[in-house]
Amino acid sequence: RGVEQEFLDWLMPRLPADARLEIGPGDDAAVLRPPAGRRTVVTVDMLTEGVDFRLGAGCDPCQVGHKALAVGLSDLAAMAARPEAAVVAVCLPRRGGGTIARGIADGISGLAAAHGVALAGGDTNAWDGPVVVSVTVLGSVEPGAAWRRDGARPGDRILATGRFGGSILGRHLAVRPRCAEAAWIARQVPVHAAIDVSDGLSLDLARLMTASGTGALIDLDRVPVHPDAERLAREDGTAPLDHALADGEDFELLLTLAPDAADRLLAADRPFATL
Amino acid sequence: RGVEQEFLDWLMPRLPADARLEIGPGDDAAVLRPPAGRRTVVTVDMLTEGVDFRLGAGCDPCQVGHKALAVGLSDLAAMAARPEAAVVAVCLPRRGGGTIARGIADGISGLAAAHGVALAGGDTNAWDGPVVVSVTVLGSVEPGAAWRRDGARPGDRILATGRFGGSILGRHLAVRPRCAEAAWIARQVPVHAAIDVSDGLSLDLARLMTASGTGALIDLDRVPVHPDAERLAREDGTAPLDHALADGEDFELLLTLAPDAADRLLAADRPFATL
Repeated sequence: RGVEQEFLDWLMPRLPADARLEIGPGDDAAVLRPPAGRRTVVTVDMLTEGVDFRLGAGCDPCQVGHKALAVGLSDLAAMAARPEAAVVAVCLPRRGGGTIARGIADGISGLAAAHGVALAGGDTNAWDGPVVVSVTVLGSVEPGAAWRRDGARPGDRILATGRFGGSILGRHLAVRPRCAEAAWIARQVPVHAAIDVSDGLSLDLARLMTASGTGALIDLDRVPVHPDAERLAREDGTAPLDHALADGEDFELLLTLAPDAADRLLAADRPFATL
Repeated sequence: RGVEQEFLDWLMPRLPADARLEIGPGDDAAVLRPPAGRRTVVTVDMLTEGVDFRLGAGCDPCQVGHKALAVGLSDLAAMAARPEAAVVAVCLPRRGGGTIARGIADGISGLAAAHGVALAGGDTNAWDGPVVVSVTVLGSVEPGAAWRRDGARPGDRILATGRFGGSILGRHLAVRPRCAEAAWIARQVPVHAAIDVSDGLSLDLARLMTASGTGALIDLDRVPVHPDAERLAREDGTAPLDHALADGEDFELLLTLAPDAADRLLAADRPFATL
């Protein structure tokens, strides 16, 4: 229990108190005060070394921690849910695991503070293997107000909260979950369906359409291509549009909504686009 | 995405509907209807192949799934919380991962059904590495009613819900979380402090006492020794009592409570003991 106990001794006094925690980290489980009258939203993501990240130049443990929480927050954004709390399970290498754990904790803590997430608990393990991080994020939403994948309707416009492609150049780690954007949009207009783009614009849009039992026509000239896709295209010869459609890990939201609602959002001074 | 998608295609139609799920598995996140007026209890545990289990003779994937959920349910039992829902993250070997995943899902599903746990969602990954399973369990409890580690008082009696030692002979996998026992006890008497025994009677009792700022006197003649500890003692020569004190993975509850409350529980026809 060397690496685990040493890490917990470092971590526990650093975890901020939170009024939502009736019982915080350190007991058998955490006890949360859920906001009255709201639904509980829950999502889990597991990141593994060698698949989702490679520690070394360009990727430190702090970035891994940031991403591990960010992908869950992105899921909450895609439900128009407000982040509330998170629990974290990690498996660390016995050699050097302490430094990695503290970096991961720093990355999680920073993003948690920025999004008002109470860190409620976790499970720390050690083994002679790669780093594994699993983050479960809890959020809340008014009854019936969560955005679903299956609500897209014929005639809807498709709106994206940002641009796509080339995330491997850095945005795949420095994920900016669109929670604030989702909360703002939810206050402005009714949204029929939503998904966050993790596996690529084409694939995730197809998932939304399949769930909704409908299809989509995309004007390829209107796909918002990220400058990173242009940069990557110059390096590998694949067209920027192909990067935008297929790369994934953009963590922008795709929303479908009535044309007049889409026009209202486009009129705002925000980097939204319809495609 | 071979192993993952194949497993999800098998799993999704098998997941039972649950009235507590406003949105179930398959969207970006699950939406739960929390029971009105209760707190949310949350715990996460990660099990890794080679550390927590070794697949092969005597340990199949179904047992791993059972245990992965059971340890979280045991944490809820130690809080006197009622199980509500779970989300599961797994990392599977690319070769043979499908069979393992279905076994794990069967183990989780069986125990979830037995304890009224709604399976709300998950994350499936594949890699060229060992099996990793992380289960987050959500429960509920009345405000202020959760059992804590830090409430033990001088003069309390210490009660155990069962016997200790030798869990490696099988009980470490066939974990029986004491949720029903905890619910029954919580209705009978006030409990001052509680913990579930995962790392050993001595160590977990010490944790409870440290959290409570008190100490414990144990009558070694009264420690409830499991028959498995006797069996193991005949094999390895270590005294049964030492197995009972140190082995761990018993997943019995240790409670502290006033002597008259302890006497009331001991008078019931249940396998409880004070030590």
